[in-house]
Amino acid sequence: MNTAILPRLTAALVRHTPVSFALEPRLHAALTQLIQRPGKLVRAQLVLVAAERHGLRPRAAEELACAVEFFHTASLVLDDLPCMDDATTRRGQPCIHRTHGEATAILAALALINRAYALTGAALASQPGRLRVAAQTCIERALGAAGLVGGQAWDLAFARTDRSAALTSRIAQQKTGALFALAIGLPAVLARPTPEEAHQLHALAVYWGQQFQIADDLRDVLTSSAGSDKTTGRDRALTRPNLALVLGVPAARARLARLGRQVTRTLEMLCAATGDRWTYLRAFNTALAAAPETDSAAA
Amino acid sequence: MNTAILPRLTAALVRHTPVSFALEPRLHAALTQLIQRPGKLVRAQLVLVAAERHGLRPRAAEELACAVEFFHTASLVLDDLPCMDDATTRRGQPCIHRTHGEATAILAALALINRAYALTGAALASQPGRLRVAAQTCIERALGAAGLVGGQAWDLAFARTDRSAALTSRIAQQKTGALFALAIGLPAVLARPTPEEAHQLHALAVYWGQQFQIADDLRDVLTSSAGSDKTTGRDRALTRPNLALVLGVPAARARLARLGRQVTRTLEMLCAATGDRWTYLRAFNTALAAAPETDSAAA
Repeated sequence: MNTAILPRLTAALVRHTPVSFALEPRLHAALTQLIQRPGKLVRAQLVLVAAERHGLRPRAAEELACAVEFFHTASLVLDDLPCMDDATTRRGQPCIHRTHGEATAILAALALINRAYALTGAALASQPGRLRVAAQTCIERALGAAGLVGGQAWDLAFARTDRSAALTSRIAQQKTGALFALAIGLPAVLARPTPEEAHQLHALAVYWGQQFQIADDLRDVLTSSAGSDKTTGRDRALTRPNLALVLGVPAARARLARLGRQVTRTLEMLCAATGDRWTYLRAFNTALAAAPETDSAAA
Repeated sequence: MNTAILPRLTAALVRHTPVSFALEPRLHAALTQLIQRPGKLVRAQLVLVAAERHGLRPRAAEELACAVEFFHTASLVLDDLPCMDDATTRRGQPCIHRTHGEATAILAALALINRAYALTGAALASQPGRLRVAAQTCIERALGAAGLVGGQAWDLAFARTDRSAALTSRIAQQKTGALFALAIGLPAVLARPTPEEAHQLHALAVYWGQQFQIADDLRDVLTSSAGSDKTTGRDRALTRPNLALVLGVPAARARLARLGRQVTRTLEMLCAATGDRWTYLRAFNTALAAAPETDSAAA
């Protein structure tokens, strides 16, 4: 990843966070806390690079990247709630609802979601109608009832299902895959991908999502909360889908390795056929593999 | 209100609700419950009539009306949560979180919000860029940190404030006014209002919002839950802003009457200056005044 990107993204996130003087103090504090600990910005970096590569002006590309980051942050805040995963820490500090209360956590997430939609609209305002509708479809498919929201519902219902590996995989795809599908797919609409490219981009989102989820599942099983920046060991306690639990740790690691090969093959096909317009995805994959997020669990 | 509108709106709401066979059963049941008890559709009716009056094709007008209704329904589901207003009944039946759990209630609200944004995008897809940005701005101003979300935060923080009538009014404006600002303002962007018209439309949203809120506050103070289709008597119990409590019942009723005169004057100015393009607002106001919602509390 380009090292100049992170400070640029951080500044854009601060600029676009929906805080103002008139804001109720707890909501203000919650949004400020979220923006001061922005995480690794993996998806936002990808969106920024991709959007510029596909012709968006720098300011608009930043808006689109912040939108995806705000959608992502909102989903984490809501996932951590007592009625969801009941987490206590996130990004190395107490979860928003632990510091500012559940109501404020929900309102902060909503403020971010509304801002994310406004930013997406602004970023794509001068694009043709068909492209904007494609972007809208991509967002709802990723975040709506068929995507993240639906995946979270299955996640919570897991104890009442057959708890199979197939269902566990599908939930991982709907949940973690959804945000990769957004981070890959949203800027990609600007490139008007061919059906073949769209198919490969979708496969890539699925593979990356599964990689991330298995790495996370392994970390949940193998690490103690003390050694992690978020609450671990919750999946077994809450009967949540966890591929390392369902398949066993060795099989989960084997699947992680296989996913790595599938990603490489998909990237080769994408990059071979169409010059260099998707090569940023290869660079992103290299950075992803080197990141401690996938590293620690696979180690 | 046109009597043919309600069945048309109800059919459109069913068509656009984000349910599918693959949906997790509780989430499916929650969304189905919400759509089977759609409330009076006051705002959605206004949006449908207004959008068609300002030139949107029938299908697109229905999409915009459903979008506003989904935003509204989502806000009710979230407001009723234990960490917010802790309500037990809504629209004459148990609240979603009482029937299907808090997590499902939150996810159902998110599914509706995502669908609402997708519907707005679809409805306005063929409109020029400036108009779409105006619509986006209208939505975020109404629903985001400066609107509904911010108002709800102040509402919850009320016990920690000076509890003045001025603050109580401002909260009512941010909360209840926000959804009227959306229902009036979103279709109105299609008409490209003059600054003067925009000012009057904004005033109208404020007055209607205050009317609705005072009527609701009076109902909360004067009615028992048994005689209402939602939980009442909560404002005093939870130290929430309530103008009938802050001003006293006679003064609240006097203010309600004054707001009625302000609405009439604003509508006269709007309709006198610009032919008949805003006359639907007058018809809507007549229907609003006759509705049991404002009636029962003022009686």
